[in-house]
Amino acid sequence: MGNRLDEFRAYRARMNERISEIGHRDINRFFSLDSAAYRDGALDARTKELLGLVASTVLRCNDCIDYHLDQCVKLGWSDAELYDALNVALVVGGSIVIPHLRHAIETIDLLRAEQSPPASVAESD
Amino acid sequence: MGNRLDEFRAYRARMNERISEIGHRDINRFFSLDSAAYRDGALDARTKELLGLVASTVLRCNDCIDYHLDQCVKLGWSDAELYDALNVALVVGGSIVIPHLRHAIETIDLLRAEQSPPASVAESD
Amino acid sequence: MGNRLDEFRAYRARMNERISEIGHRDINRFFSLDSAAYRDGALDARTKELLGLVASTVLRCNDCIDYHLDQCVKLGWSDAELYDALNVALVVGGSIVIPHLRHAIETIDLLRAEQSPPASVAESD
Amino acid sequence: MGNRLDEFRAYRARMNERISEIGHRDINRFFSLDSAAYRDGALDARTKELLGLVASTVLRCNDCIDYHLDQCVKLGWSDAELYDALNVALVVGGSIVIPHLRHAIETIDLLRAEQSPPASVAESD
Amino acid sequence: MGNRLDEFRAYRARMNERISEIGHRDINRFFSLDSAAYRDGALDARTKELLGLVASTVLRCNDCIDYHLDQCVKLGWSDAELYDALNVALVVGGSIVIPHLRHAIETIDLLRAEQSPPASVAESD
Amino acid sequence: MGNRLDEFRAYRARMNERISEIGHRDINRFFSLDSAAYRDGALDARTKELLGLVASTVLRCNDCIDYHLDQCVKLGWSDAELYDALNVALVVGGSIVIPHLRHAIETIDLLRAEQSPPASVAESD
Repeated sequence: MGNRLDEFRAYRARMNERISEIGHRDINRFFSLDSAAYRDGALDARTKELLGLVASTVLRCNDCIDYHLDQCVKLGWSDAELYDALNVALVVGGSIVIPHLRHAIETIDLLRAEQSPPASVAESD
Repeated sequence: MGNRLDEFRAYRARMNERISEIGHRDINRFFSLDSAAYRDGALDARTKELLGLVASTVLRCNDCIDYHLDQCVKLGWSDAELYDALNVALVVGGSIVIPHLRHAIETIDLLRAEQSPPASVAESD
Repeated sequence: MGNRLDEFRAYRARMNERISEIGHRDINRFFSLDSAAYRDGALDARTKELLGLVASTVLRCNDCIDYHLDQCVKLGWSDAELYDALNVALVVGGSIVIPHLRHAIETIDLLRAEQSPPASVAESD
Repeated sequence: MGNRLDEFRAYRARMNERISEIGHRDINRFFSLDSAAYRDGALDARTKELLGLVASTVLRCNDCIDYHLDQCVKLGWSDAELYDALNVALVVGGSIVIPHLRHAIETIDLLRAEQSPPASVAESD
Repeated sequence: MGNRLDEFRAYRARMNERISEIGHRDINRFFSLDSAAYRDGALDARTKELLGLVASTVLRCNDCIDYHLDQCVKLGWSDAELYDALNVALVVGGSIVIPHLRHAIETIDLLRAEQSPPASVAESD
Repeated sequence: MGNRLDEFRAYRARMNERISEIGHRDINRFFSLDSAAYRDGALDARTKELLGLVASTVLRCNDCIDYHLDQCVKLGWSDAELYDALNVALVVGGSIVIPHLRHAIETIDLLRAEQSPPASVAESD
């Protein structure tokens, strides 16, 4: 029960909690600086999450892609807009990005399925 | 005479022309796909250029940063907005990005100086 | 039943199909440009796949390595030739490439096992 | 039975053995040069393993992180010292390193659990 | 007098000499392993240099590109073949490779000019 | 008059000042987090600068290499120790690191020349 997104969210929450409890002052400051980077400022949070998505995709980090896609969907970006952003990442980063594009597209589909869960069980083919 | 932006623009234009005249069909197709990625679509050109800027910065390519900053300024992004985008790139990419942040900030200053050239000579202190 | 190569091939085919059905014109054009890069031209397809293998290895992408190894084996490169190509990638990319070298060597062994399957079941020792 | 560290160690040992038996002279020389880099010299092995850990973390290779953490713990680096080294890697490499920081912290916890195994089973979930 | 290729060759020769005279055994062994990777073996030197060129291009190292292009031209690869190899690098590595593609094309032109120097002065159009 | 180290130090100081005066709170916080990472803690500043050097070298950033070498020399690391650290970076990062190794060795020589300037004038100030 639960898909790979749920597993990722649980692992991420558990380990972030573990890192926080270690109490390394500068590591904790880095995490709060990281959160701050995506808050409304001169650019709004919505745009910043899209920037985070593209940065994560060209740097080829699936966990980072999943996190930012989760935020992007919550903040109302449409599929068509996300595909356009991923296309920029694909052109900048090249075919080496394609495995991460596959992952991203699958994640978008999983996130949409969470928004309107099918009547019957589903999720795996 | 002219600053490093003018030199970059001239070199870029000359070599793109040279590449085009070689006539390699697929290299030319790549260049046109690259241009297409930043045109208005589900996302507008303005947003896409900002995505291109952040992608270029985390991948640490000064020429790409200069190109996208040039476009971003033309499309009306303010300094404060560009700084916010560069901050996302800095947090995602880390201190290894700092030399490219210095370059980007200098480029923004050069681009603004082009927009409102000082009465007297300028540009190099 | 089936090894990790079969799983990869199935996932890759399923997600490429999904991406294709989305119908984003420029993403689809990128995929066709990607395919075109490995067709016979001034260099033959065989040499190009070996170039793709080395590029994938220094950029440390296991899925890309598996894809190009699959093609390289189909196009007749011998183990000794593949090892020489992987050695170039190892020297250029350094010890950080070693986990991907392990993966690549395992993939070559899986591909050879597909070519001459043992009488009994096998594959996992 | 056994955690992900045991699986990694077994896979690494098995594939290194396989690579060695292939007998590619230069690949084997690379492996011995790699081992030599971490032996006592002008810098001691202890410092060199810490350098290897930070290099592996900014280059974002989990297998390499696990290998060097294993050595670092054997050579007597404390948790506080390892966290300081990982903090350098985090600041240099940015938030894209965070998933690997999570992995590294989990690995340190697994390594410490090996040193003083709990009376009852534990460790998984 | 002398173009950027001559400057690069002189700097490279001077610093390699300096590194060699330092006498660090393992650094020297790395350099000889690096040379060995491009010698005739299961693959011939010609193919290996082309692999080195593509690896250098996707990893975006201009000095490495220049070195391998120099070797590739000496070993008889034609412009059309080199363009095909660079196209593979461009598709794999994406538009972030374009500044290095410009550099590579310029280097090829400089290398051909060395082979058949024009009657009059040369090098800058 | 003045070598490339002096130019780098002046440019770095000038642009860091410019960035600071912009007053982007989070960019400034990043810079102070960056400085903090190299202060005495569980690991001493001396070890941390060596970690910064190796991280910078495998990530192939000449400006970062120069900055950390400057600090490393001030903090008393010997040439032999720095060569050992650079050798770790070379083995981890591969031959693509070699142009940066050349740069690093040249920087070490320039830094030593600053410490014991030759009787006659020479090149640095």
